[in-house]
Amino acid sequence: MAEDPACIFCKILAGEIPCHEIYRDDAVLAFLDIGPLSPGHTLVIPQAHVTTMDALSADQAAAIGGALPRLVEAVQAATGAAGLNVLQNNGAVAGQEVNHLHVHLIPRHDGDGLGFRWKPESYAANEAEAMRDRLRSALA
Amino acid sequence: MAEDPACIFCKILAGEIPCHEIYRDDAVLAFLDIGPLSPGHTLVIPQAHVTTMDALSADQAAAIGGALPRLVEAVQAATGAAGLNVLQNNGAVAGQEVNHLHVHLIPRHDGDGLGFRWKPESYAANEAEAMRDRLRSALA
Repeated sequence: MAEDPACIFCKILAGEIPCHEIYRDDAVLAFLDIGPLSPGHTLVIPQAHVTTMDALSADQAAAIGGALPRLVEAVQAATGAAGLNVLQNNGAVAGQEVNHLHVHLIPRHDGDGLGFRWKPESYAANEAEAMRDRLRSALA
Repeated sequence: MAEDPACIFCKILAGEIPCHEIYRDDAVLAFLDIGPLSPGHTLVIPQAHVTTMDALSADQAAAIGGALPRLVEAVQAATGAAGLNVLQNNGAVAGQEVNHLHVHLIPRHDGDGLGFRWKPESYAANEAEAMRDRLRSALA
């Protein structure tokens, strides 16, 4: 039975909604995104219903991470992609559309028009040091 | 000494080039991106010189993954970001600019104009099943 009956990915995990399954173990499921940015676009999700990265345990996050190298290699081999983006969106403002954490594996090809919008900025004097200190405090 | 003397991230790991360090353990280093897409943009890199995700061992990938929940939580707390993208680019075609694997933690705010370009497609009849089968074969 779906862990969260309102969650489409929990329903997929429970077999209540079909998917094109690529890989499954005790911690994760990988399956095709049905609205692919390019053919072979794959989603990797935790078996447990967790919404965002900050809510995963370290063990859950390690299990997802540990599954990625083989999956990335397989997606590139099967699609002939020259590159691949691993993308995980946290929160609606970041593009998250399903509230069950998912990692996108997006095969990339020359001239595909995809990719992250890249508009780098810079820090004014002492701002980077102040930000570093805030980040360390938040982590402590 | 830098594991790969030609690699800027290996030089940072070895202390030969300074960085704004946020976190370090036996497997990973996290530090500020000096060309941030938004303030607090953080990079997480393996201590070992590995170029792309498919070349990481499962253990190395698990160590990176396991470090992410606390780091993501800290970046959001320190920046007040409403969301965050976790992004890892494999290959020049995917936007990779430094050939030492790195995970971007990109704080997101309303109206920031960032995000992944999203142009979903769909599979024609039987194409998803054929892709699934190719992916499973590549994984086997």
